[in-house]
Amino acid sequence: MTDDTKIQLPDDRIPRAWYNIQADLPQPLAPVLHPGTGQPVGPGDMEPLFPGALVAQEMTTEREVEIPKPVRDVYRLWRPTPLYRARRLETALQTPARIYYKYEGVSPTGSHKPNTAVAQAFYNREAGIRRLTTETGAGQWGCSLAFAGTVFGLDVDVYMVKVSYRQKPYRRAMMEAYGARCVASPSEETQAGRTVLAQDPETTGSLGIAISEAVEVAAARDDVKYALGSVLNHVLLHQTVIGLEAMEQMALAGDSPDVLIGCTGGGSNFAGLVLPFLGQDLRRGQRTRILAVEPTACPTLTRGRFAYDFGDTGHYTPLMKMHTLGSTFVPSGIHAGGLRYHGMAPIVSHLADLGLLEAHAFHQLECFEAGVLFARTEGIVPAPEANHAVRAAIAEAERCREEGTQRVILFNLCGHGHFDMQAYTDYFAGSLHDFEHDDASLRTALDELPEVAAG
Amino acid sequence: MTDDTKIQLPDDRIPRAWYNIQADLPQPLAPVLHPGTGQPVGPGDMEPLFPGALVAQEMTTEREVEIPKPVRDVYRLWRPTPLYRARRLETALQTPARIYYKYEGVSPTGSHKPNTAVAQAFYNREAGIRRLTTETGAGQWGCSLAFAGTVFGLDVDVYMVKVSYRQKPYRRAMMEAYGARCVASPSEETQAGRTVLAQDPETTGSLGIAISEAVEVAAARDDVKYALGSVLNHVLLHQTVIGLEAMEQMALAGDSPDVLIGCTGGGSNFAGLVLPFLGQDLRRGQRTRILAVEPTACPTLTRGRFAYDFGDTGHYTPLMKMHTLGSTFVPSGIHAGGLRYHGMAPIVSHLADLGLLEAHAFHQLECFEAGVLFARTEGIVPAPEANHAVRAAIAEAERCREEGTQRVILFNLCGHGHFDMQAYTDYFAGSLHDFEHDDASLRTALDELPEVAAG
Repeated sequence: MTDDTKIQLPDDRIPRAWYNIQADLPQPLAPVLHPGTGQPVGPGDMEPLFPGALVAQEMTTEREVEIPKPVRDVYRLWRPTPLYRARRLETALQTPARIYYKYEGVSPTGSHKPNTAVAQAFYNREAGIRRLTTETGAGQWGCSLAFAGTVFGLDVDVYMVKVSYRQKPYRRAMMEAYGARCVASPSEETQAGRTVLAQDPETTGSLGIAISEAVEVAAARDDVKYALGSVLNHVLLHQTVIGLEAMEQMALAGDSPDVLIGCTGGGSNFAGLVLPFLGQDLRRGQRTRILAVEPTACPTLTRGRFAYDFGDTGHYTPLMKMHTLGSTFVPSGIHAGGLRYHGMAPIVSHLADLGLLEAHAFHQLECFEAGVLFARTEGIVPAPEANHAVRAAIAEAERCREEGTQRVILFNLCGHGHFDMQAYTDYFAGSLHDFEHDDASLRTALDELPEVAAG
Repeated sequence: MTDDTKIQLPDDRIPRAWYNIQADLPQPLAPVLHPGTGQPVGPGDMEPLFPGALVAQEMTTEREVEIPKPVRDVYRLWRPTPLYRARRLETALQTPARIYYKYEGVSPTGSHKPNTAVAQAFYNREAGIRRLTTETGAGQWGCSLAFAGTVFGLDVDVYMVKVSYRQKPYRRAMMEAYGARCVASPSEETQAGRTVLAQDPETTGSLGIAISEAVEVAAARDDVKYALGSVLNHVLLHQTVIGLEAMEQMALAGDSPDVLIGCTGGGSNFAGLVLPFLGQDLRRGQRTRILAVEPTACPTLTRGRFAYDFGDTGHYTPLMKMHTLGSTFVPSGIHAGGLRYHGMAPIVSHLADLGLLEAHAFHQLECFEAGVLFARTEGIVPAPEANHAVRAAIAEAERCREEGTQRVILFNLCGHGHFDMQAYTDYFAGSLHDFEHDDASLRTALDELPEVAAG
């Protein structure tokens, strides 16, 4: 093992290809279905929304997908990201475990999201697209696509859920600093928005409505496409730069992880870290423990059903087989906004169904407690989402102490908390509390799953 | 020249010694005077506030001061920081100039301030100190000392100007996340605070009062010391890691700067970049242009007097010979809070007096305009302070375009703007405006300079 606390790759070690887990899956993914016909969708069904290169990436089973040089050139602004050995945290926990974390907060927007935003903007520009539309809740994804858009000269329209648009003006200002147009959703710009406003002019919006607006605008024009920040196969593919770098860094550290940990909302930062390790395990017949960590208030993997469901609440998307709480499930207002999603990436869901990962749920307060311990030992204030991974890593390290075992833990610290300090303010003021999910509302949402789910 | 956009040093190239310009000055600094006696202060006068190692660094004329290994180990969390070639900005400006910037925003608190906070916390801990006190305005320095305190196991009390304490809860939350105690100033905890509150219970405080509180607490106890985030010689010394790394990185890039640029509040990030280059010039008999950039609303170098003055408005500090607007001058409420200081580091002032640097002042709006162009080309949203350096670099590059000359410009991007997005919100909303300094109030403040100034 190295004595270093930081393991930094040289710039020429930015991966040259993304890793595609579909090449190594023991069973293929279930097909995506057209909601009208119930039949598998083909490339032609997706091309109104995505350029051909991304549709091909969504479906390919090639193991490696080359990263275009212009994308690698932009990655170089912040990649390779550092891998740290959390020595001060280990000391504080008095654990024999060795804890490592990959830190994605060094990107210009402070999280892992630009890894896919940059790739998506590049392929759209190559396809002659002039404008991208997307939705954003808390704003992390909207900022990242705005950043990628300005780098590749694309206009970006972000439909931001109205309640966040009002409550999080800093994220909106960042999108505008990057030159994107940020629109409060529902808006008067789309039929979907106008319909909702006609029914309830005072609505504060929802992610489902914002998706509908972004999709409607993209579908209507040939030179406008839509971009999504998680869930889809090509998004997870782009995020594998995280794990590919981490594998090299762990080798440089002279160490090998026994446990891999990431937090899961739509699943992309988690998958980005673990898929390259898992693929190697599958090819070699090995097994590394993999932990997906989610909030108790939105327990998609631990309490959801593995079934066909819509990706949005407005039911504009195709049907994907995934772990879902039902598209009508509304999670409690926890501060980890990036983890408040009813569904889960089909790839992550499939792995859970195959028994290739464990899922754990943690409460909000214990996650903030972990994040504060992390800040006070390692010096980085994590995003509320990342605190879930920190919490699970600490739980593992504490188990190692109790058992007297020396396991090697690697987790993904997917972003810093500089835009989320209100959550810490509330935590220190004692005004945060834990939420259980609502059993009755979960049952209702699961009862409303589309019929194909039964098939 | 390299084709690379990022020049990254390996971790083992973190400097092993800070560079001390006092070894190479053509004339020595004017002595610091005791306000009571008018005589030069000695080490004994400073040791109630600072540990012996820092007092020695304040006064030494040794060229190199070794960086202790524990300090370098903490630096490694984010150092060496990247140096970038601003190719997209160059293209947007259609300039033949080559623009480079050193980026200090990758630190855990998002600016250059931890470079000295970590060193100060280390030397205090070595001296057996248990607690540090400091003041903070906008909160950048308070966060950085809180970070350094938690790393070295020191308690940190931050007296935060009450108006900022109320308006900037995110900075306060970050200090608390690091375990520091953040107190609204004036407070009931000190005689200085109680006196002010007795006169005006509704006061919103000032940096001068906050300094008085922090100094009072530190002076009263042997195991408590005071820490300052700029101005003093040892602070500038610690910041030279910026310029020392940049010199190596420019050599790796195969290029050599013709113009060095930094923004100046107390002077530390500016000095950190330029002093190592200037020292080399002085030893070799060369001359690189050096530009100090300040806000028109607080024109310390461009309109202030080079005279003895107090460092604080409460007149608790020794008298330093520096460029000053007078300690009673109150700058307008521009968003670049870190540049709103009436004085200037004695070293920077001395260099200006010797004609070794040029000073330029820019208005707030043109700086934000420059920052937005920078964000849209380079992908990083700068702090409002850093926008002043960006503005000056763009002005230089535009001059190169007009003249058809190929100068090499290097500036310090001292921090990101993630905590300052309200300023961008105001800028986009059109609610920011420019301030001239108030000539009458400046004349009054200069008239009130202490009498020794005439001597």
